Amino acid sequence: MTLFIKIGGGEGISLSPILTELASLIRADPALRVVLVHGGSHETNVLSEKLGRPPRTITSPSGHTSRRTDRDTLDIFTMVYCGRINKSIVEHLQREGVNAVGLSGIDSAIWRGTRKSAIRAIEEGRTVIIRDDLSGTVDAVDADFLNLLMDTGRVPVLTPPAITEDGIAINVDADRAAARTAAALGADELLLLSNVRGVLRNPDDPSSLITHASAANIDDVRAAAGGRMKNKVLAAEEAMTGVGGTPVSRVVIGAANGDNPIARARAGSGTVFTSSAHAGAAH
Amino acid sequence: MTLFIKIGGGEGISLSPILTELASLIRADPALRVVLVHGGSHETNVLSEKLGRPPRTITSPSGHTSRRTDRDTLDIFTMVYCGRINKSIVEHLQREGVNAVGLSGIDSAIWRGTRKSAIRAIEEGRTVIIRDDLSGTVDAVDADFLNLLMDTGRVPVLTPPAITEDGIAINVDADRAAARTAAALGADELLLLSNVRGVLRNPDDPSSLITHASAANIDDVRAAAGGRMKNKVLAAEEAMTGVGGTPVSRVVIGAANGDNPIARARAGSGTVFTSSAHAGAAH
Repeated sequence: MTLFIKIGGGEGISLSPILTELASLIRADPALRVVLVHGGSHETNVLSEKLGRPPRTITSPSGHTSRRTDRDTLDIFTMVYCGRINKSIVEHLQREGVNAVGLSGIDSAIWRGTRKSAIRAIEEGRTVIIRDDLSGTVDAVDADFLNLLMDTGRVPVLTPPAITEDGIAINVDADRAAARTAAALGADELLLLSNVRGVLRNPDDPSSLITHASAANIDDVRAAAGGRMKNKVLAAEEAMTGVGGTPVSRVVIGAANGDNPIARARAGSGTVFTSSAHAGAAH
Repeated sequence: MTLFIKIGGGEGISLSPILTELASLIRADPALRVVLVHGGSHETNVLSEKLGRPPRTITSPSGHTSRRTDRDTLDIFTMVYCGRINKSIVEHLQREGVNAVGLSGIDSAIWRGTRKSAIRAIEEGRTVIIRDDLSGTVDAVDADFLNLLMDTGRVPVLTPPAITEDGIAINVDADRAAARTAAALGADELLLLSNVRGVLRNPDDPSSLITHASAANIDDVRAAAGGRMKNKVLAAEEAMTGVGGTPVSRVVIGAANGDNPIARARAGSGTVFTSSAHAGAAH
Protein backbone atom coordinates (compact mmCIF):
# COMPACT_ATOMS: atom_id res chain seq x y z
CA MET A 1 0.00 0.00 0.00
CA THR A 2 1.46 3.36 -1.08
CA LEU A 3 -0.17 6.42 0.42
CA PHE A 4 0.66 9.72 -1.22
CA ILE A 5 -0.08 12.91 0.69
CA LYS A 6 0.28 16.49 -0.47
CA ILE A 7 0.00 19.18 2.21
CA GLY A 8 -0.60 22.68 0.92
CA GLY A 9 1.36 25.74 1.91
CA GLY A 10 -1.53 28.18 2.16
CA GLU A 11 -2.24 30.49 5.08
CA GLY A 12 -3.57 28.91 8.26
CA ILE A 13 -2.34 25.36 7.79
CA SER A 14 -0.93 23.86 10.98
CA LEU A 15 1.63 21.20 10.08
CA SER A 16 2.27 19.76 13.50
CA PRO A 17 -0.99 17.79 14.07
CA ILE A 18 -0.99 16.24 10.62
CA LEU A 19 2.66 15.19 10.94
CA THR A 20 1.95 13.62 14.30
CA GLU A 21 -0.98 11.73 12.77
CA LEU A 22 1.21 10.59 9.87
CA ALA A 23 3.94 9.40 12.23
CA SER A 24 1.47 7.32 14.24
CA LEU A 25 0.07 5.77 11.04
CA ILE A 26 3.56 4.74 9.98
CA ARG A 27 4.47 3.39 13.41
CA ALA A 28 1.24 1.34 13.41
CA ASP A 29 1.94 -0.11 9.95
CA PRO A 30 5.65 -0.24 9.13
CA ALA A 31 4.81 -1.81 5.74
CA LEU A 32 2.94 1.34 4.71
CA ARG A 33 4.83 3.20 1.99
CA VAL A 34 4.38 6.95 2.24
CA VAL A 35 5.46 9.90 0.15
CA LEU A 36 4.80 13.40 1.41
CA VAL A 37 4.81 16.45 -0.85
CA HIS A 38 4.45 19.95 0.56
CA GLY A 39 4.03 23.51 -0.61
CA GLY A 40 5.04 26.76 1.01
CA SER A 41 3.29 29.61 -0.75
CA HIS A 42 2.16 31.56 2.29
CA GLU A 43 5.54 31.56 4.04
CA THR A 44 7.21 32.49 0.76
CA ASN A 45 4.91 35.50 0.54
CA VAL A 46 5.75 36.46 4.13
CA LEU A 47 9.51 36.24 3.56
CA SER A 48 9.22 38.06 0.22
CA GLU A 49 7.47 40.95 1.97
CA LYS A 50 10.08 41.03 4.73
CA LEU A 51 12.84 41.21 2.13
CA GLY A 52 11.11 44.05 0.33
CA ARG A 53 10.11 41.98 -2.71
CA PRO A 54 6.31 41.64 -2.53
CA PRO A 55 5.05 38.52 -4.34
CA ARG A 56 3.47 38.87 -7.76
CA THR A 57 0.90 36.59 -9.35
CA ILE A 58 0.32 35.58 -12.95
CA THR A 59 -3.29 34.99 -14.02
CA SER A 60 -3.75 33.03 -17.23
CA PRO A 61 -6.56 33.83 -19.70
CA SER A 62 -8.43 30.74 -18.39
CA GLY A 63 -8.14 31.97 -14.80
CA HIS A 64 -5.33 29.73 -13.47
CA THR A 65 -3.08 31.63 -11.09
CA SER A 66 0.60 31.06 -10.44
CA ARG A 67 3.55 32.81 -8.85
CA ARG A 68 5.59 35.19 -11.01
CA THR A 69 9.01 33.58 -10.61
CA ASP A 70 12.13 35.53 -11.52
CA ARG A 71 15.58 34.47 -10.27
CA ASP A 72 15.31 36.44 -7.00
CA THR A 73 11.87 35.00 -6.35
CA LEU A 74 13.17 31.48 -6.98
CA ASP A 75 15.96 32.08 -4.44
CA ILE A 76 13.44 33.11 -1.79
CA PHE A 77 11.12 30.28 -2.81
CA THR A 78 13.94 27.74 -2.44
CA MET A 79 14.91 29.06 0.99
CA VAL A 80 11.36 28.61 2.25
CA TYR A 81 10.28 25.42 0.50
CA CYS A 82 13.57 23.44 0.58
CA GLY A 83 15.02 25.05 3.69
CA ARG A 84 12.62 26.18 6.34
CA ILE A 85 9.51 24.11 5.63
CA ASN A 86 11.10 20.93 4.26
CA LYS A 87 13.56 20.64 7.13
CA SER A 88 11.00 21.51 9.80
CA ILE A 89 8.82 18.66 8.48
CA VAL A 90 11.77 16.25 8.46
CA GLU A 91 12.78 17.34 11.96
CA HIS A 92 9.24 16.75 13.23
CA LEU A 93 8.97 13.30 11.64
CA GLN A 94 12.43 12.27 12.86
CA ARG A 95 11.45 13.37 16.36
CA GLU A 96 8.51 10.98 16.14
CA GLY A 97 10.61 8.07 14.94
CA VAL A 98 9.99 8.32 11.18
CA ASN A 99 13.11 8.14 9.02
CA ALA A 100 12.19 11.07 6.79
CA VAL A 101 14.42 12.34 3.99
CA GLY A 102 13.75 15.85 2.69
CA LEU A 103 14.38 16.41 -1.00
CA SER A 104 13.48 18.88 -3.70
CA GLY A 105 12.61 17.98 -7.26
CA ILE A 106 16.09 19.03 -8.37
CA ASP A 107 17.82 16.48 -6.09
CA SER A 108 18.65 13.40 -8.16
CA ALA A 109 16.52 15.26 -10.75
CA ILE A 110 13.50 13.59 -9.15
CA TRP A 111 11.22 16.00 -11.00
CA ARG A 112 12.46 16.64 -14.54
CA GLY A 113 10.39 19.32 -16.21
CA THR A 114 9.98 21.83 -18.99
CA ARG A 115 10.16 25.57 -18.51
CA LYS A 116 7.33 27.56 -20.04
CA SER A 117 9.08 29.67 -22.66
CA ALA A 118 6.10 31.94 -23.16
CA ILE A 119 3.27 32.46 -20.70
CA ARG A 120 0.07 34.21 -21.72
CA ALA A 121 -1.11 36.32 -18.83
CA ILE A 122 -3.77 38.90 -18.15
CA GLU A 123 -2.33 42.15 -16.78
CA GLU A 124 -4.67 45.07 -16.21
CA GLY A 125 -7.19 43.58 -18.62
CA ARG A 126 -4.69 43.03 -21.44
CA THR A 127 -3.11 39.75 -22.58
CA VAL A 128 0.68 39.89 -22.36
CA ILE A 129 3.40 37.32 -23.06
CA ILE A 130 5.96 36.63 -20.30
CA ARG A 131 9.16 34.98 -21.57
CA ASP A 132 11.55 35.04 -18.61
CA ASP A 133 9.53 33.19 -16.00
CA LEU A 134 11.28 30.31 -14.18
CA SER A 135 8.22 28.08 -13.99
CA GLY A 136 7.00 25.02 -15.80
CA THR A 137 5.63 21.52 -15.45
CA VAL A 138 6.99 18.12 -14.47
CA ASP A 139 7.41 15.66 -17.37
CA ALA A 140 9.25 12.76 -15.72
CA VAL A 141 9.74 11.39 -12.22
CA ASP A 142 12.76 9.46 -10.85
CA ALA A 143 10.53 6.77 -9.38
CA ASP A 144 13.52 4.43 -8.95
CA PHE A 145 15.10 6.76 -6.43
CA LEU A 146 11.88 7.26 -4.49
CA ASN A 147 11.34 3.50 -4.43
CA LEU A 148 14.93 2.97 -3.27
CA LEU A 149 14.24 5.29 -0.34
CA MET A 150 10.98 3.56 0.55
CA ASP A 151 12.48 0.07 0.08
CA THR A 152 15.06 1.01 2.73
CA GLY A 153 12.44 2.21 5.21
CA ARG A 154 12.69 5.91 4.47
CA VAL A 155 9.91 8.42 3.90
CA PRO A 156 10.59 10.92 1.09
CA VAL A 157 9.45 14.47 1.83
CA LEU A 158 9.39 16.23 -1.52
CA THR A 159 8.96 19.83 -2.58
CA PRO A 160 9.46 22.07 -5.63
CA PRO A 161 11.45 23.31 -7.51
CA ALA A 162 11.84 20.84 -10.37
CA ILE A 163 14.72 20.94 -12.87
CA THR A 164 14.79 21.17 -16.67
CA GLU A 165 16.85 18.98 -19.02
CA ASP A 166 19.25 21.94 -19.23
CA GLY A 167 19.64 21.93 -15.46
CA ILE A 168 17.61 25.04 -14.65
CA ALA A 169 15.53 25.02 -11.46
CA ILE A 170 11.88 25.82 -12.12
CA ASN A 171 8.88 26.49 -9.95
CA VAL A 172 6.18 23.89 -10.55
CA ASP A 173 2.70 23.48 -9.13
CA ALA A 174 3.13 21.12 -6.19
CA ASP A 175 -0.36 19.59 -6.53
CA ARG A 176 0.21 18.60 -10.14
CA ALA A 177 3.77 17.43 -9.39
CA ALA A 178 2.34 15.30 -6.58
CA ALA A 179 -0.28 13.83 -8.92
CA ARG A 180 2.32 12.92 -11.51
CA THR A 181 4.58 11.38 -8.87
CA ALA A 182 1.71 9.37 -7.36
CA ALA A 183 0.96 7.96 -10.83
CA ALA A 184 4.66 7.23 -11.49
CA LEU A 185 4.86 5.28 -8.23
CA GLY A 186 1.58 3.45 -8.76
CA ALA A 187 0.25 4.92 -5.53
CA ASP A 188 -3.08 3.57 -4.31
CA GLU A 189 -4.38 6.79 -2.86
CA LEU A 190 -3.58 10.48 -3.24
CA LEU A 191 -4.69 13.01 -0.64
CA LEU A 192 -4.49 16.70 -1.58
CA LEU A 193 -4.88 18.43 1.77
CA SER A 194 -5.04 22.18 2.23
CA ASN A 195 -6.82 25.01 4.00
CA VAL A 196 -10.12 24.26 2.23
CA ARG A 197 -12.51 21.36 2.80
CA GLY A 198 -12.73 20.37 -0.85
CA VAL A 199 -14.36 21.72 -3.99
CA LEU A 200 -17.16 24.08 -3.00
CA ARG A 201 -19.89 25.27 -5.37
CA ASN A 202 -19.86 28.52 -3.40
CA PRO A 203 -16.46 29.33 -1.81
CA ASP A 204 -18.22 31.15 1.05
CA ASP A 205 -20.54 28.28 1.90
CA PRO A 206 -18.94 25.17 3.41
CA SER A 207 -22.20 23.27 2.97
CA SER A 208 -21.83 23.57 -0.81
CA LEU A 209 -19.09 20.92 -0.80
CA ILE A 210 -19.10 18.59 -3.79
CA THR A 211 -18.52 15.26 -2.07
CA HIS A 212 -17.92 13.08 -5.12
CA ALA A 213 -16.37 13.65 -8.50
CA SER A 214 -16.31 11.26 -11.43
CA ALA A 215 -16.72 11.28 -15.19
CA ALA A 216 -20.42 11.92 -14.68
CA ASN A 217 -20.03 15.34 -13.04
CA ILE A 218 -16.47 16.41 -13.80
CA ASP A 219 -17.62 19.41 -15.83
CA ASP A 220 -19.58 20.68 -12.83
CA VAL A 221 -16.57 20.15 -10.57
CA ARG A 222 -14.29 22.05 -12.93
CA ALA A 223 -16.77 24.88 -13.19
CA ALA A 224 -17.06 25.15 -9.41
CA ALA A 225 -13.28 25.33 -8.86
CA GLY A 226 -11.80 28.82 -8.84
CA GLY A 227 -8.34 30.21 -8.04
CA ARG A 228 -5.89 27.69 -6.64
CA MET A 229 -8.61 25.02 -6.54
CA LYS A 230 -8.43 24.84 -10.35
CA ASN A 231 -4.94 23.35 -10.07
CA LYS A 232 -6.05 20.84 -7.46
CA VAL A 233 -8.91 19.61 -9.64
CA LEU A 234 -6.56 19.40 -12.62
CA ALA A 235 -4.08 17.48 -10.45
CA ALA A 236 -6.81 15.09 -9.28
CA GLU A 237 -7.86 14.46 -12.88
CA GLU A 238 -4.26 13.85 -13.97
CA ALA A 239 -3.74 11.38 -11.14
CA MET A 240 -7.00 9.57 -12.00
CA THR A 241 -5.99 9.29 -15.68
CA GLY A 242 -2.51 8.17 -14.61
CA VAL A 243 -0.56 10.78 -16.58
CA GLY A 244 3.05 9.56 -16.60
CA GLY A 245 2.28 6.25 -14.88
CA THR A 246 -0.58 4.19 -13.52
CA PRO A 247 -4.01 5.65 -12.72
CA VAL A 248 -4.41 6.36 -9.01
CA SER A 249 -7.66 4.73 -8.02
CA ARG A 250 -8.71 7.28 -5.42
CA VAL A 251 -7.95 10.97 -4.97
CA VAL A 252 -9.35 13.12 -2.17
CA ILE A 253 -9.21 16.92 -2.01
CA GLY A 254 -9.71 17.64 1.68
CA ALA A 255 -8.76 19.64 4.75
CA ALA A 256 -5.26 19.63 6.27
CA ASN A 257 -6.52 21.04 9.58
CA GLY A 258 -8.76 19.65 12.31
CA ASP A 259 -8.47 16.33 14.11
CA ASN A 260 -6.91 13.44 12.19
CA PRO A 261 -7.12 15.04 8.76
CA ILE A 262 -5.47 12.03 7.07
CA ALA A 263 -7.95 9.54 8.53
CA ARG A 264 -10.84 11.83 7.72
CA ALA A 265 -9.76 12.32 4.12
CA ARG A 266 -9.22 8.57 3.71
CA ALA A 267 -12.71 8.02 5.11
CA GLY A 268 -14.10 10.27 2.41
CA SER A 269 -14.28 13.71 4.00
CA GLY A 270 -13.76 16.24 1.21
CA THR A 271 -14.21 15.83 -2.53
CA VAL A 272 -13.56 12.21 -3.46
CA PHE A 273 -12.54 11.44 -7.03
CA THR A 274 -13.24 7.91 -8.20
CA SER A 275 -13.34 6.34 -11.62
CA SER A 276 -16.62 4.57 -10.83
CA ALA A 277 -19.93 5.81 -12.17
CA HIS A 278 -21.05 6.41 -8.60
CA ALA A 279 -20.97 10.17 -8.26
CA GLY A 280 -23.08 12.69 -6.48
CA ALA A 281 -23.43 16.42 -6.13
CA ALA A 282 -23.41 18.57 -3.01
CA HIS A 283 -25.00 17.07 0.11
CA MET B 1 38.70 6.00 -4.32
CA THR B 2 36.51 8.24 -2.15
CA LEU B 3 37.24 11.95 -2.32
CA PHE B 4 35.69 14.08 0.38
CA ILE B 5 35.50 17.83 -0.16
CA LYS B 6 34.30 20.49 2.24
CA ILE B 7 33.77 23.96 0.77
CA GLY B 8 33.53 26.77 3.30
CA GLY B 9 30.82 29.37 3.43
CA GLY B 10 32.99 32.37 4.25
CA GLU B 11 32.94 35.68 2.45
CA GLY B 12 34.45 35.82 -1.02
CA ILE B 13 34.19 32.15 -1.97
CA SER B 14 33.06 31.65 -5.54
CA LEU B 15 31.31 28.28 -5.84
CA SER B 16 30.87 28.12 -9.57
CA PRO B 17 34.48 27.39 -10.68
CA ILE B 18 35.05 24.72 -8.05
CA LEU B 19 31.77 22.97 -8.92
CA THR B 20 32.70 23.01 -12.60
CA GLU B 21 36.07 21.49 -11.74
CA LEU B 22 34.39 18.84 -9.59
CA ALA B 23 31.92 17.96 -12.35
CA SER B 24 34.74 17.49 -14.87
CA LEU B 25 36.64 15.27 -12.42
CA ILE B 26 33.57 13.08 -11.98
CA ARG B 27 32.86 12.90 -15.71
CA ALA B 28 36.49 11.88 -16.31
CA ASP B 29 36.37 9.13 -13.69
CA PRO B 30 32.86 7.76 -13.15
CA ALA B 31 34.23 5.32 -10.55
CA LEU B 32 35.30 8.23 -8.34
CA ARG B 33 33.15 8.39 -5.22
CA VAL B 34 32.62 11.95 -4.04
CA VAL B 35 30.93 13.54 -1.05
CA LEU B 36 30.64 17.30 -0.88
CA VAL B 37 29.97 19.17 2.36
CA HIS B 38 29.37 22.91 2.38
CA GLY B 39 28.95 25.76 4.81
CA GLY B 40 27.06 29.01 4.48
CA SER B 41 28.13 31.34 7.27
CA HIS B 42 28.58 34.52 5.24
CA GLU B 43 25.22 34.30 3.44
CA THR B 44 23.55 33.48 6.75
CA ASN B 45 25.03 36.66 8.19
CA VAL B 46 23.79 38.67 5.19
CA LEU B 47 20.23 37.29 5.45
CA SER B 48 20.23 37.74 9.24
CA GLU B 49 21.12 41.42 8.78
CA LYS B 50 18.41 41.87 6.13
CA LEU B 51 15.83 40.35 8.47
CA GLY B 52 16.91 42.66 11.28
CA ARG B 53 18.53 39.93 13.38
CA PRO B 54 22.29 40.65 13.27
CA PRO B 55 24.38 37.51 13.83
CA ARG B 56 25.99 36.95 17.23
CA THR B 57 29.13 34.97 17.96
CA ILE B 58 30.13 32.86 20.95
CA THR B 59 33.81 32.85 21.90
CA SER B 60 34.93 30.01 24.14
CA PRO B 61 37.56 30.51 26.87
CA SER B 62 40.07 28.71 24.60
CA GLY B 63 39.31 31.08 21.72
CA HIS B 64 37.09 28.88 19.51
CA THR B 65 34.31 30.88 17.92
CA SER B 66 30.85 29.67 16.92
CA ARG B 67 27.48 31.09 15.94
CA ARG B 68 25.03 31.90 18.73
CA THR B 69 22.09 29.76 17.61
CA ASP B 70 18.64 30.38 19.03
CA ARG B 71 15.52 29.03 17.28
CA ASP B 72 15.11 32.06 15.00
CA THR B 73 18.77 31.89 14.04
CA LEU B 74 18.42 28.19 13.24
CA ASP B 75 15.45 28.97 10.97
CA ILE B 76 17.49 31.52 9.03
CA PHE B 77 20.51 29.18 9.05
CA THR B 78 18.39 26.35 7.62
CA MET B 79 16.95 28.58 4.89
CA VAL B 80 20.43 29.55 3.73
CA TYR B 81 22.35 26.30 4.21
CA CYS B 82 19.68 23.74 3.22
CA GLY B 83 17.71 25.97 0.87
CA ARG B 84 19.61 28.57 -1.03
CA ILE B 85 23.18 27.24 -1.01
CA ASN B 86 22.52 23.48 -1.00
CA LYS B 87 20.06 23.67 -3.89
CA SER B 88 22.18 26.09 -5.92
CA ILE B 89 25.08 23.62 -5.65
CA VAL B 90 22.83 20.71 -6.68
CA GLU B 91 21.39 22.74 -9.56
CA HIS B 92 24.91 23.59 -10.78
CA LEU B 93 26.12 19.98 -10.58
CA GLN B 94 22.98 18.63 -12.26
CA ARG B 95 23.48 21.18 -15.06
CA GLU B 96 26.94 19.70 -15.59
CA GLY B 97 25.69 16.12 -15.68
CA VAL B 98 26.42 15.10 -12.08
CA ASN B 99 23.56 13.34 -10.29
CA ALA B 100 23.81 15.36 -7.08
CA VAL B 101 21.47 14.87 -4.11
CA GLY B 102 21.30 17.69 -1.59
CA LEU B 103 20.74 16.67 2.03
CA SER B 104 21.12 18.08 5.49
CA GLY B 105 22.38 16.17 8.50
CA ILE B 106 18.80 15.82 9.74
CA ASP B 107 17.65 13.95 6.60
CA SER B 108 17.73 10.22 7.34
CA ALA B 109 19.46 11.46 10.52
CA ILE B 110 22.71 11.33 8.55
CA TRP B 111 24.40 13.36 11.29
CA ARG B 112 23.22 12.31 14.73
CA GLY B 113 24.63 14.58 17.39
CA THR B 114 24.53 15.90 20.93
CA ARG B 115 23.40 19.37 21.86
CA LYS B 116 25.71 21.28 24.17
CA SER B 117 23.63 21.74 27.28
CA ALA B 118 25.97 24.34 28.76
CA ILE B 119 28.46 26.42 26.81
CA ARG B 120 31.16 28.41 28.57
CA ALA B 121 31.62 31.68 26.74
CA ILE B 122 33.50 34.91 27.21
CA GLU B 123 31.25 37.96 27.11
CA GLU B 124 32.77 41.37 27.78
CA GLY B 125 35.68 39.73 29.55
CA ARG B 126 33.53 37.58 31.86
CA THR B 127 32.88 33.84 31.60
CA VAL B 128 29.17 33.09 31.26
CA ILE B 129 27.23 29.85 30.81
CA ILE B 130 24.78 29.62 27.88
CA ARG B 131 22.18 26.88 28.27
CA ASP B 132 19.69 27.43 25.44
CA ASP B 133 21.98 27.26 22.42
CA LEU B 134 20.91 24.92 19.60
CA SER B 135 24.40 23.79 18.72
CA GLY B 136 26.44 20.69 19.30
CA THR B 137 28.63 18.05 17.74
CA VAL B 138 28.13 15.02 15.50
CA ASP B 139 28.47 11.64 17.24
CA ALA B 140 27.36 9.21 14.54
CA VAL B 141 27.04 9.17 10.77
CA ASP B 142 24.55 7.19 8.64
CA ALA B 143 27.32 5.90 6.36
CA ASP B 144 24.98 3.23 4.94
CA PHE B 145 22.75 5.85 3.42
CA LEU B 146 25.64 7.84 1.96
CA ASN B 147 27.10 4.62 0.53
CA LEU B 148 23.70 3.69 -0.93
CA LEU B 149 23.63 7.02 -2.74
CA MET B 150 27.19 6.63 -4.05
CA ASP B 151 26.63 2.97 -4.99
CA THR B 152 23.78 4.13 -7.23
CA GLY B 153 25.89 6.80 -8.94
CA ARG B 154 24.75 9.74 -6.89
CA VAL B 155 26.83 12.48 -5.27
CA PRO B 156 25.67 13.50 -1.79
CA VAL B 157 25.86 17.23 -1.09
CA LEU B 158 25.65 17.57 2.68
CA THR B 159 25.19 20.50 5.03
CA PRO B 160 24.29 21.23 8.67
CA PRO B 161 22.16 21.14 10.78
CA ALA B 162 22.55 17.77 12.48
CA ILE B 163 19.86 16.18 14.69
CA THR B 164 19.92 14.96 18.28
CA GLU B 165 18.59 11.61 19.54
CA ASP B 166 15.56 13.58 20.73
CA GLY B 167 14.98 14.87 17.22
CA ILE B 168 16.13 18.46 17.72
CA ALA B 169 17.98 20.16 14.87
CA ILE B 170 21.34 21.55 15.96
CA ASN B 171 23.97 23.72 14.35
CA VAL B 172 27.27 21.85 14.07
CA ASP B 173 30.65 22.89 12.76
CA ALA B 174 30.69 21.77 9.12
CA ASP B 175 34.46 21.17 9.06
CA ARG B 176 34.34 18.78 12.00
CA ALA B 177 31.16 17.13 10.69
CA ALA B 178 32.92 16.63 7.35
CA ALA B 179 35.96 15.11 9.11
CA ARG B 180 33.81 12.67 11.03
CA THR B 181 31.88 11.70 7.91
CA ALA B 182 35.07 11.21 5.90
CA ALA B 183 36.33 8.85 8.62
CA ALA B 184 32.98 7.01 8.78
CA LEU B 185 33.10 6.43 5.01
CA GLY B 186 36.75 5.43 5.00
CA ALA B 187 37.51 8.29 2.60
CA ASP B 188 41.02 8.37 1.13
CA GLU B 189 41.38 12.11 1.05
CA LEU B 190 39.71 15.07 2.74
CA LEU B 191 40.02 18.58 1.34
CA LEU B 192 38.94 21.46 3.57
CA LEU B 193 38.72 24.37 1.13
CA SER B 194 37.88 27.92 2.13
CA ASN B 195 38.80 31.56 1.61
CA VAL B 196 42.27 31.07 3.14
CA ARG B 197 45.29 29.29 1.64
CA GLY B 198 45.97 27.10 4.64
CA VAL B 199 47.33 27.54 8.14
CA LEU B 200 49.40 30.73 8.26
CA ARG B 201 51.89 31.61 11.01
CA ASN B 202 50.91 35.22 10.41
CA PRO B 203 47.35 35.68 9.08
CA ASP B 204 48.45 38.82 7.19
CA ASP B 205 51.38 37.15 5.44
CA PRO B 206 50.51 34.51 2.80
CA SER B 207 54.18 33.49 2.66
CA SER B 208 53.94 32.26 6.27
CA LEU B 209 51.94 29.21 5.12
CA ILE B 210 52.69 26.02 7.03
CA THR B 211 52.88 23.55 4.16
CA HIS B 212 52.99 20.31 6.15
CA ALA B 213 51.54 19.16 9.42
CA SER B 214 52.24 15.91 11.21
CA ALA B 215 52.80 14.64 14.72
CA ALA B 216 56.20 16.33 14.67
CA ASN B 217 54.88 19.90 14.40
CA ILE B 218 51.20 19.66 15.35
CA ASP B 219 51.68 21.88 18.41
CA ASP B 220 53.10 24.63 16.20
CA VAL B 221 50.21 24.23 13.77
CA ARG B 222 47.65 24.47 16.57
CA ALA B 223 49.35 27.54 17.96
CA ALA B 224 49.37 29.26 14.57
CA ALA B 225 45.65 28.67 13.95
CA GLY B 226 43.33 31.43 15.17
CA GLY B 227 39.62 32.09 14.79
CA ARG B 228 37.79 29.77 12.43
CA MET B 229 41.08 28.10 11.46
CA LYS B 230 41.13 26.48 14.92
CA ASN B 231 38.13 24.35 13.93
CA LYS B 232 39.70 23.37 10.63
CA VAL B 233 42.88 22.17 12.35
CA LEU B 234 40.81 20.28 14.90
CA ALA B 235 38.79 18.75 12.05
CA ALA B 236 41.96 17.74 10.23
CA GLU B 237 43.31 16.10 13.37
CA GLU B 238 40.05 14.25 13.99
CA ALA B 239 40.03 12.95 10.41
CA MET B 240 43.68 11.84 10.69
CA THR B 241 42.95 9.96 13.92
CA GLY B 242 39.82 8.49 12.36
CA VAL B 243 37.38 9.60 15.05
CA GLY B 244 34.19 7.60 14.44
CA GLY B 245 35.69 5.47 11.68
CA THR B 246 38.91 4.85 9.77
CA PRO B 247 41.81 7.32 9.73
CA VAL B 248 41.84 9.44 6.58
CA SER B 249 45.35 9.18 5.22
CA ARG B 250 45.58 12.68 3.81
CA VAL B 251 43.89 15.96 4.73
CA VAL B 252 44.56 19.28 3.02
CA ILE B 253 43.47 22.69 4.28
CA GLY B 254 43.59 24.85 1.16
CA ALA B 255 42.00 27.54 -0.98
CA ALA B 256 38.55 27.21 -2.58
CA ASN B 257 39.23 30.01 -5.04
CA GLY B 258 41.62 30.36 -7.97
CA ASP B 259 42.10 28.00 -10.91
CA ASN B 260 41.40 24.31 -10.29
CA PRO B 261 41.38 24.50 -6.50
CA ILE B 262 40.63 20.77 -6.14
CA ALA B 263 43.57 19.72 -8.30
CA ARG B 264 45.86 22.19 -6.55
CA ALA B 265 44.86 20.99 -3.08
CA ARG B 266 45.30 17.37 -4.12
CA ALA B 267 48.74 18.29 -5.47
CA GLY B 268 49.65 19.64 -2.06
CA SER B 269 48.89 23.35 -2.23
CA GLY B 270 47.86 24.44 1.27
CA THR B 271 48.59 22.79 4.60
CA VAL B 272 48.93 19.04 4.07
CA PHE B 273 48.32 16.77 7.05
CA THR B 274 49.95 13.38 6.86
CA SER B 275 50.62 10.75 9.46
CA SER B 276 54.21 10.35 8.23
CA ALA B 277 57.12 11.84 10.11
CA HIS B 278 57.95 13.95 7.08
CA ALA B 279 56.88 17.42 8.09
CA GLY B 280 58.16 20.89 7.48
CA ALA B 281 57.57 24.43 8.60
CA ALA B 282 56.83 27.53 6.54
CA HIS B 283 58.56 27.80 3.18
